[in-house]
Amino acid sequence: MANEIPNAFYAQSGGVTAVINASAAGVIETARQHPDRIGKVYAGRNGIIGALLEDLIDTSLESDEAIAALKHTPSGAFGSCRYKLKSLEENKAEYERLIEVFRAHNIRYFFYNGGGDSMDTAHKVSMLSERMNFPIQCIGIPKTVDNDLPITDNCPGFGSVAKYVAVSIKEAAFDVASMAKTSTKVFVLEVMGRHAGWIAAAGGLAAEREGDAPHVILFPEIPFDQEAFLARVKHAVETWGYCALVVSEGVRTADGQFLSDAGTTDAFGHKQLGGVAPLIAQMVKQHLGYKYHWAVADYLQRAARHIASKTDVEQAYAMGKAAVEMALAGKNAVMPTIERLSDAPYRWQVGEAPLSAVANVEKKLPRDFITADGFGITEKARRYLQPLIEGEDYPPYVNGLPYYVRLKNILVPKKLPEDFTL
Amino acid sequence: MANEIPNAFYAQSGGVTAVINASAAGVIETARQHPDRIGKVYAGRNGIIGALLEDLIDTSLESDEAIAALKHTPSGAFGSCRYKLKSLEENKAEYERLIEVFRAHNIRYFFYNGGGDSMDTAHKVSMLSERMNFPIQCIGIPKTVDNDLPITDNCPGFGSVAKYVAVSIKEAAFDVASMAKTSTKVFVLEVMGRHAGWIAAAGGLAAEREGDAPHVILFPEIPFDQEAFLARVKHAVETWGYCALVVSEGVRTADGQFLSDAGTTDAFGHKQLGGVAPLIAQMVKQHLGYKYHWAVADYLQRAARHIASKTDVEQAYAMGKAAVEMALAGKNAVMPTIERLSDAPYRWQVGEAPLSAVANVEKKLPRDFITADGFGITEKARRYLQPLIEGEDYPPYVNGLPYYVRLKNILVPKKLPEDFTL
Repeated sequence: MANEIPNAFYAQSGGVTAVINASAAGVIETARQHPDRIGKVYAGRNGIIGALLEDLIDTSLESDEAIAALKHTPSGAFGSCRYKLKSLEENKAEYERLIEVFRAHNIRYFFYNGGGDSMDTAHKVSMLSERMNFPIQCIGIPKTVDNDLPITDNCPGFGSVAKYVAVSIKEAAFDVASMAKTSTKVFVLEVMGRHAGWIAAAGGLAAEREGDAPHVILFPEIPFDQEAFLARVKHAVETWGYCALVVSEGVRTADGQFLSDAGTTDAFGHKQLGGVAPLIAQMVKQHLGYKYHWAVADYLQRAARHIASKTDVEQAYAMGKAAVEMALAGKNAVMPTIERLSDAPYRWQVGEAPLSAVANVEKKLPRDFITADGFGITEKARRYLQPLIEGEDYPPYVNGLPYYVRLKNILVPKKLPEDFTL
Repeated sequence: MANEIPNAFYAQSGGVTAVINASAAGVIETARQHPDRIGKVYAGRNGIIGALLEDLIDTSLESDEAIAALKHTPSGAFGSCRYKLKSLEENKAEYERLIEVFRAHNIRYFFYNGGGDSMDTAHKVSMLSERMNFPIQCIGIPKTVDNDLPITDNCPGFGSVAKYVAVSIKEAAFDVASMAKTSTKVFVLEVMGRHAGWIAAAGGLAAEREGDAPHVILFPEIPFDQEAFLARVKHAVETWGYCALVVSEGVRTADGQFLSDAGTTDAFGHKQLGGVAPLIAQMVKQHLGYKYHWAVADYLQRAARHIASKTDVEQAYAMGKAAVEMALAGKNAVMPTIERLSDAPYRWQVGEAPLSAVANVEKKLPRDFITADGFGITEKARRYLQPLIEGEDYPPYVNGLPYYVRLKNILVPKKLPEDFTL
């Protein structure tokens, strides 16, 4: 047993992205290049839950071709989860179970691919391994469409959502512009970003010259001012003939309440069905009388691998690869980061951050990325965002549809006598 | 004047598509190849309104490169409109004005690019030309994302929306599937098609093997049966772990009422803000308790030139080209059609239909395209739909965004003394 080559555990955590599987490919392909150091990569089925339940997928049974196809497959190939481990004090049993499972399967590397909460979990596992005298190297792999992790210049997953939103508002605005004379004058696109306006800001990239859409962006960082907003919409329609808006789902009133929670109910007394786009559109209609249309991109934006950013795909892969290389270099409790060297031409390199500095820190959109009036992005924001949507990386197509791989996901035989209750 | 080479009028009508500009390119490029027969192509600004207001764009002032770029530019490059000419009896003045404008600008070809209403208008103009002894050849060019024109096997614009919807539900379903264990179990995508379920049906192409999404499609043609619907959703979640749905905006109750008009109002007593997806999602939550997400694609679907069907782009161009060739062949009151020769391999050719047979006829989704239970598509539908989404035809990209052309749209000097009031 002692001479056996140690195995690795890899899991995907939280909301998935168009490129998180590229990170998985980076981990698995790099591990496969070091069979003397890393035995097998076991993936947790449905994220960390897979470790707790000893529900482990043997990725060594997947072909090289299947693993390569992960680079162009959205979603979490092994299943992800929304499951936050409690603090060590609150639920020591969970952490002990993790170590028990790792010990049973000779897992000595722990790769956790997620956002702020996940980096916190990875950090806790690394502390636990010291405390329980079970050597395991914990490496975080950044991932979030929200782009809100600290230290790293940006997060894999964000660039592709950013590209999707910028392309979508550009296209929809072309549509509206061509019909505005006799039809829809106001179009509202709702995008993700409950707490930070990075995704909404990315919509601003579509505006390449004066008068271009989006004419208004509503950020979670800027309290919603109905009067100023309506004046702005009116001005756009009167100046350009139409108004195309990008609205963050997280836009709030001055008292911090989500606009989408503003208390509307339907005829049955149910809470309003959600979606700030219809609310905003209705407000415009009511006060300005303009005909409107609205769209809610929801999961389409974070799943849209068909229009992924090439930069994003490359960075996601690089993070997975770097994580394995850091583990092989003997590192622990760290996360690879993206370090920007220059904006134009865009150059970046892999950096490193301690998990303790990443865990639970949320990076908001800086105020100087938003114009003074609160409705647009600044040149500084544009310089930051533009490289992240750069490049196309199309998946292969079969019968007019993207070919996305589905792995065999064959489970590793269980070794522990007991089941674990979540 | 009599010896002058006659000019052509071209206009875009109704809701735009990802490929209507490819038809425009087909018209203009083909006309340019026959300078001895066609002088200039004047485009109506904002569709037929441009003819009524003598608001004509001189397309001869656009470069060959700009016209070629129309092939990959969504929306209506000259502006479209929602403006239905009344019947000849009701508003003869409008038709007379058209002839007056055409006479003033020596326009002898009338190309009208639109759906059923537009073919009706083109037909009326052709009748008027006879009655008023003003020779003008009227050729319709089919266009509609709704795919509801008769005679032609399919309509340019539809294939690209179909591809967008099939790709989007496939991608979103991958996302949902990977998170379903601990998060969203039901995902609803609302698509266009107020009166016919062609677009919703196209979502069915994403289901390539058993258990694939969409697990449920709701068509306007099938009265909504809440009990059967909920049972179906429950079955999908229990069998596959999740349920991804495509819902047509036009889904109706048994009494013919749109489900989205089902009388919900918000706290202020306003009518519910629209969108059948949130309604359906809420219904699932209320009766089955599943966590849901929903998206409304709205204009994103018909503007999505970035993921256009190559087949669709080619057909749109071919229709514009054929229209000019028909005019040159002395034809009148006809519309080029797409004739399917075989499903697999897909082969098609240009056909011809009289405008009188096309005008105001709406082609619904045949019942045998929908499964007996009303929630899916049949093999017959699949054979019909599949070729229409075949092939990718990506636009060029600059700075991570598609490059879409904006024409100069320089107006032709007015010749008539009077303004016309719409």
